[in-house]
Amino acid sequence: MLSTSTSAKSSNEAASKYLNLASINQRVVNMEYAVRGAIPIRAEQIQAELKSESANHPFNKIVFCNIGNPQQLEQKPLTFLRQVSSLIEYPDLLKEPMLSNTKKLFPEDAIKRAQETMEFVGSSIGAYTGSTGINKIRENVAKFIEKRDGFPSHADNIQLTNGASGAVERVLELLISDNSVGIMIPIPQYPLYTASLTRFGARAVPYYLKEDSNWGMDVSSLTEIVNKARSEGTNVKGLVVINPGNPTGGVLSEQNMNEIIQFCEQEKIVLLADEVYQANVYYPQEKPFHSFKKIASQLNSNVEMFSFHSISKGMIGECGRRGGYLEMHNISQPVRDIMYKMASVSLCSNVLGQVAIDIMVNPPKEGDASYEQFNSELSSIFDSLKARSKKLANAFNNQENMSCNKAEGSMYLFPQVKFSQKYLDFCKENNKSPDVEYSMRMLENTGVCVVPGSGFGQVPGTYHFRCTFLPPERDFDSFISTFGKFHINFMNEFRD
Amino acid sequence: MLSTSTSAKSSNEAASKYLNLASINQRVVNMEYAVRGAIPIRAEQIQAELKSESANHPFNKIVFCNIGNPQQLEQKPLTFLRQVSSLIEYPDLLKEPMLSNTKKLFPEDAIKRAQETMEFVGSSIGAYTGSTGINKIRENVAKFIEKRDGFPSHADNIQLTNGASGAVERVLELLISDNSVGIMIPIPQYPLYTASLTRFGARAVPYYLKEDSNWGMDVSSLTEIVNKARSEGTNVKGLVVINPGNPTGGVLSEQNMNEIIQFCEQEKIVLLADEVYQANVYYPQEKPFHSFKKIASQLNSNVEMFSFHSISKGMIGECGRRGGYLEMHNISQPVRDIMYKMASVSLCSNVLGQVAIDIMVNPPKEGDASYEQFNSELSSIFDSLKARSKKLANAFNNQENMSCNKAEGSMYLFPQVKFSQKYLDFCKENNKSPDVEYSMRMLENTGVCVVPGSGFGQVPGTYHFRCTFLPPERDFDSFISTFGKFHINFMNEFRD
Repeated sequence: MLSTSTSAKSSNEAASKYLNLASINQRVVNMEYAVRGAIPIRAEQIQAELKSESANHPFNKIVFCNIGNPQQLEQKPLTFLRQVSSLIEYPDLLKEPMLSNTKKLFPEDAIKRAQETMEFVGSSIGAYTGSTGINKIRENVAKFIEKRDGFPSHADNIQLTNGASGAVERVLELLISDNSVGIMIPIPQYPLYTASLTRFGARAVPYYLKEDSNWGMDVSSLTEIVNKARSEGTNVKGLVVINPGNPTGGVLSEQNMNEIIQFCEQEKIVLLADEVYQANVYYPQEKPFHSFKKIASQLNSNVEMFSFHSISKGMIGECGRRGGYLEMHNISQPVRDIMYKMASVSLCSNVLGQVAIDIMVNPPKEGDASYEQFNSELSSIFDSLKARSKKLANAFNNQENMSCNKAEGSMYLFPQVKFSQKYLDFCKENNKSPDVEYSMRMLENTGVCVVPGSGFGQVPGTYHFRCTFLPPERDFDSFISTFGKFHINFMNEFRD
Repeated sequence: MLSTSTSAKSSNEAASKYLNLASINQRVVNMEYAVRGAIPIRAEQIQAELKSESANHPFNKIVFCNIGNPQQLEQKPLTFLRQVSSLIEYPDLLKEPMLSNTKKLFPEDAIKRAQETMEFVGSSIGAYTGSTGINKIRENVAKFIEKRDGFPSHADNIQLTNGASGAVERVLELLISDNSVGIMIPIPQYPLYTASLTRFGARAVPYYLKEDSNWGMDVSSLTEIVNKARSEGTNVKGLVVINPGNPTGGVLSEQNMNEIIQFCEQEKIVLLADEVYQANVYYPQEKPFHSFKKIASQLNSNVEMFSFHSISKGMIGECGRRGGYLEMHNISQPVRDIMYKMASVSLCSNVLGQVAIDIMVNPPKEGDASYEQFNSELSSIFDSLKARSKKLANAFNNQENMSCNKAEGSMYLFPQVKFSQKYLDFCKENNKSPDVEYSMRMLENTGVCVVPGSGFGQVPGTYHFRCTFLPPERDFDSFISTFGKFHINFMNEFRD
């Protein structure tokens, strides 16, 4: 994970320092986060090189498929969300003498919504809010969840956070009382989880997703895994599920979810449900999204759980705004008080992110001036994402020695590549990780930046990479053809 | 810190839960953060009660003096900052056909600045930025520091963060390798520090500020303190200085700063310089602000240090936006790489906060359309803050058994109250902390919410509270008179 600028020179320089790799916190030294690791760092270097005339690369731009960052790849923001945000940034626009000109630029429902927002924000979006976020927005989140699930939700159980990352980190820190604690995580997983477990000093207790059943879960294996971990002295406290899956693109069946909830309740394990891709579900007839909160409520389960959602994904894609929320379900009041205190030390999450959450959970309604545009923007992004996911999965499946499950949800494909023995030997001799080397060569030859499967975990002896399907539709054909040429050349170079 | 809603009922309910106060992370259970602790929580309850007709309080609003939150107390945001933010939220405003109407609402330099900002932001403010923030903004921060200090600064050493709190937490987590680590902190201090030390499992090694020298430092005592801590097995790694002081309002002398830097270098202790109030300096002739980076550079010191700054304070007061930065000085490349990785796991700080940092460090220039308004807004806030600080300090000093240093800087006064023996006996009998009880009574009688001195630390046997001087100027006379009545009644009730 260290940048390539850690040269011999800087190591010498470092030797004279009292703050050095040996004297700092080893948990953060050991933490790994491949989504922004060595390959993306190299991609950024190349991007800088491409600006100079002397650049010598066989492409003229980097395509960042390493990270679910839609607006970096030209996805347009939702107009209504931006109009409301723009107005609350400069509330003079909402009052005369400016208002008459404002009305020439903004639709009436955006103006009305901005006025209502300023009322419940109170003084100014430049003030700290309550530690867990603005009350009215937390109430609106609860209403959204009730409508989605058909079961009660309460603002007291909602915390607004800086992205879902901030929410996940808070809950893991709450759970991890010492280094005997284990958290069950899917393999492959989103590396925020492994990074945070290393950071907070806990043990990862992995369970494998089944690639041959479109990344479903084998819940029957969980009991064996937890028993084994416990027999080794691991205090298994939590189980993470990412649904829809990251990096897998899978959507869990209701049957799987029932079993997971019963398992967690029986084993007294806290369920962490990462549901940030809940709006990215491409086959809602065959594989609909259900929240774990809803399924737990249907089962009348006492499972203790936390769920996470975000404005960074879905069709909103407002990653840079850092807005997220968590819901606590069946969590006792004293523990919720501690969660409140944890939020309070960092004062509050950023207010513009909170307001974007409000628009996500309470969008324009039928009859509002922006209703049609809002929905047409949503569905055009949705349709395009689905089309791109199919096109890219097909392209991968048409390559020699590659196979790829379709994306039932999320923004990613996680294709498997079968490498020749010759290539594996080459990697062994040169002390290289096969999937990392493959991904690095892809970057150097095509400008496409993906993340090697080892950054997420994979069955030993299998090799994958994660690739978003977010590049603009018009770039897709050249993107696929460039990748195809690289892949066939690579296969030819290392043919047994 | 637990809310009053932790009732017997919920304790019973909690008994059946597997997640409970005994099973979660004890470090976060033990963490204390008084700025949003029991008294502010009670203040929020009263505020809610005041909305109902049956409310029975001797005041009609709560004045939140517990937290430096200027825009909650009617401080106006800087117009130029809000105009630029509004435009980048909705970039269609920057292009025809909308641009001609936009020009009727926004000055030309705000439009130009927004266009330039969109260029270096790249695609959209809705995209993740680089992990440590947008390059161009980090370059502008470095230029600002160079201009302020007259010494070089580099973008590579700058990280943009979610407020200065996020920056401080990152550095403390970096330093704290195990529970033998000690961090020297001033007493009184801003409780983010003690809370974070508890959270990361380190020891607080306190040094006292001298109330009778306007909260200056007795640097000669530091050596004795560090030697004692080391003899007890504490690995003293860092020293925190808050300058201008929070909660004290003191500004350090250059002589003090020289000595601190030499001490840290000699003892191989990392210096953490919390300089978020650097623009809140009210007597720049007698007590100017110097950055620790500048003084260390003047001394050509090898001290390893981190400095912190924020958009939440100064005359900007954009707390809700969560923008901050840290600068690393004399930190080795490998350690900076780890800091980069720590930033990357949470992806990036929010982009609107980053852009506000850019406006703070690169404000309108002479000749720009907004230059005069920007500066007149700045100086009117500054003049008013200074006037309010004097008025409030005078008011405190005119009360029986109270004394208060003037605020040389920051947004706070930290007056001392001498309690009668009768009152101290009463508190002992009733198992109450004298300063907490005094502050709670102040709240219940006047609606003014302050933070008891014990939340910041104080010399044993002395009692203080922290009070911002941020309420609007027009409310000040009634504010002071209401407080005065409460105080004299309190003194009379417990006269020996």
